[in-house]
Amino acid sequence: MLITLLTDFGTADYFVGAMKGVILSMNADARIVDITHEIPPQDIRAGAFTLSVVSQTFPSGTIHVAVVDPGVGSERRPILVSGGNQFFVGPDNGLFSFVYEREAAARVFHLTNEDYFRQPVSATFHGRDVFAAVAGALSKGISPEQLGVEIKDYVRLTMLKPKRMGTQTIEASIIHIDRFGNCVTNLTREDLTEEMLARGLRLKINGREITSFHRFFAENDGPPDELFVIWGSAGYLEIAAFRASAASLLDTRPGQVITVMSNE
Amino acid sequence: MLITLLTDFGTADYFVGAMKGVILSMNADARIVDITHEIPPQDIRAGAFTLSVVSQTFPSGTIHVAVVDPGVGSERRPILVSGGNQFFVGPDNGLFSFVYEREAAARVFHLTNEDYFRQPVSATFHGRDVFAAVAGALSKGISPEQLGVEIKDYVRLTMLKPKRMGTQTIEASIIHIDRFGNCVTNLTREDLTEEMLARGLRLKINGREITSFHRFFAENDGPPDELFVIWGSAGYLEIAAFRASAASLLDTRPGQVITVMSNE
Amino acid sequence: MLITLLTDFGTADYFVGAMKGVILSMNADARIVDITHEIPPQDIRAGAFTLSVVSQTFPSGTIHVAVVDPGVGSERRPILVSGGNQFFVGPDNGLFSFVYEREAAARVFHLTNEDYFRQPVSATFHGRDVFAAVAGALSKGISPEQLGVEIKDYVRLTMLKPKRMGTQTIEASIIHIDRFGNCVTNLTREDLTEEMLARGLRLKINGREITSFHRFFAENDGPPDELFVIWGSAGYLEIAAFRASAASLLDTRPGQVITVMSNE
Repeated sequence: MLITLLTDFGTADYFVGAMKGVILSMNADARIVDITHEIPPQDIRAGAFTLSVVSQTFPSGTIHVAVVDPGVGSERRPILVSGGNQFFVGPDNGLFSFVYEREAAARVFHLTNEDYFRQPVSATFHGRDVFAAVAGALSKGISPEQLGVEIKDYVRLTMLKPKRMGTQTIEASIIHIDRFGNCVTNLTREDLTEEMLARGLRLKINGREITSFHRFFAENDGPPDELFVIWGSAGYLEIAAFRASAASLLDTRPGQVITVMSNE
Repeated sequence: MLITLLTDFGTADYFVGAMKGVILSMNADARIVDITHEIPPQDIRAGAFTLSVVSQTFPSGTIHVAVVDPGVGSERRPILVSGGNQFFVGPDNGLFSFVYEREAAARVFHLTNEDYFRQPVSATFHGRDVFAAVAGALSKGISPEQLGVEIKDYVRLTMLKPKRMGTQTIEASIIHIDRFGNCVTNLTREDLTEEMLARGLRLKINGREITSFHRFFAENDGPPDELFVIWGSAGYLEIAAFRASAASLLDTRPGQVITVMSNE
Repeated sequence: MLITLLTDFGTADYFVGAMKGVILSMNADARIVDITHEIPPQDIRAGAFTLSVVSQTFPSGTIHVAVVDPGVGSERRPILVSGGNQFFVGPDNGLFSFVYEREAAARVFHLTNEDYFRQPVSATFHGRDVFAAVAGALSKGISPEQLGVEIKDYVRLTMLKPKRMGTQTIEASIIHIDRFGNCVTNLTREDLTEEMLARGLRLKINGREITSFHRFFAENDGPPDELFVIWGSAGYLEIAAFRASAASLLDTRPGQVITVMSNE
């Protein structure tokens, strides 16, 4: 049984190792796969984005444990999401918003059955005592219904989708900046009309206008540091620069708004 | 068979990959679990602490390979510890001190049988040629007695436990600072009397006094940057700050002494 | 079936997780081993070196997926190398040069059969859509001949081997700097004559001359910061400094030339 881990814990401390130990103590046959532990601390949106892209490559039945959890210890609920033939375990703070959007039939369970928690439950480390323990139980065949009660009022992040401002204008935003400084927007091919694509796009951000469109990173017919857009491997439009950080050149950050227009 | 790895090698070089290759060449069925490779270089105390906390979450039979080894190539002995139904393989420099303390019946073996080393043994990389190779052999059923000879004069770290200075005063120390800047002390609930807990605690460190006690990180009724103490998920008292690094605010580092008193 | 991953992707983004998901979707029994994802961005030589050292510790049948791929999306070919009873999957840019050198019988296949790619193939992420997918297919028993066509004109890095300049002089170079600042040269014992070793070596680099030879790092009979040479655990001569970074002391970088002479 595959269990993936995605956290903002970094790998320097005991946190990730302890989660692995708890899972393997509950199910010695579990196969743990590290997705990343380098989500920027407490950045729920970045965790949601990465989990969304990665989970689509995994097989049916995979259990994803995701912990980006600024509210640990408070009243925020621990949840389990069953959707798209996979499971997602973590805090109810919007981390699974992309799953809700993608899988209309997703069901969400508030994890209320403390019999499946590791005792005593630390007030500060639910990653180990609640989420890893529940993932271990789930991998042993315990059902969502045994682990908690279904809820409908789970938390969703807003602003995941771009807004259409007119026939030729869309307000998009940056949802992720990768280690190379490429700026991933929330714009997919489906958000654009055939007409906009045929006319060509212009992006406005921080007083700059970007019109150059590339097919891959090594393609460059412009000067160094020239900004261009590209369809990224996650399926979203990205702003990039040849051998440079587009994020630095644009002085931008996740959440920033971009105006996308077609040429006239 | 589970084999965990904890080192100060980082993940950028060939060191960790080579250890994995040696283990898997000896036992193709071994299941390797990364605990961390980000122990601060040569910080035996930090490695000992992390290993102690993590190993308690793993199942019986787990083999832990730990390499924080400033003395590699010198006369320091390679050892195997059998304790608490788990195994620990690494250098005899105090790295397993918490195991000795926790498991009174632990047995320690000097790894003298070079038949189970990878040949030729590099003078600088026992992680691969001695510790990984011995872990591989152990996972195949080779006994500790076949791998070496039992010893009693193994190295123990001092100052792991706080010192009682009077009925209401304890001298503790910081044993670990995590990536969020939380300062983990060596003080557990068992070190405190009911009376001290009932009266409430005051901590003195670097000219500062900390009296606020929190149950979880998101709980905050004070100003930003206010320092507070909290029972951490490793079972030790920690000094923390709300959305800030307590270590930076206190300008402290591992090893620093803290005076813990109860209120009068 | 063992599949290792070596990339320059870092671990903060979705790239590595997506490669793992694709492999496990194709072969749920694949056992994935992270070698490193911290190869310096686009540094083919560093990737080639690390892969060479690590792959020698892995068992027969291992599939190594290596992605350091500045030319992704351009005309550079995706390839599969079969050599030394192992497989290597990645871009044709010299990344497998050490394998070609070590395994004279190595065979190289241009991956032309798109049936085994993940569709649609992103122009920017062949690590996921080509290399991980092909590794998954290979681990399920698909043969190299089914995956592509054998080629002979694959790319090799130059300057992997030192040049003999006279009976007592060799021109070597630095091929890797590890996290401790040790400078790994391309000089092995086989490059030196018995006579040179008997007389003792002198290294000239950046106006400095190094004559001290150590057997292990903790051995030090000189002043702090003294530079010395040592036979490293990868089998190459290294320049090191006691508890200091030799690379910083020498202000050097990979690729720099070193003159190696024997004493007269």
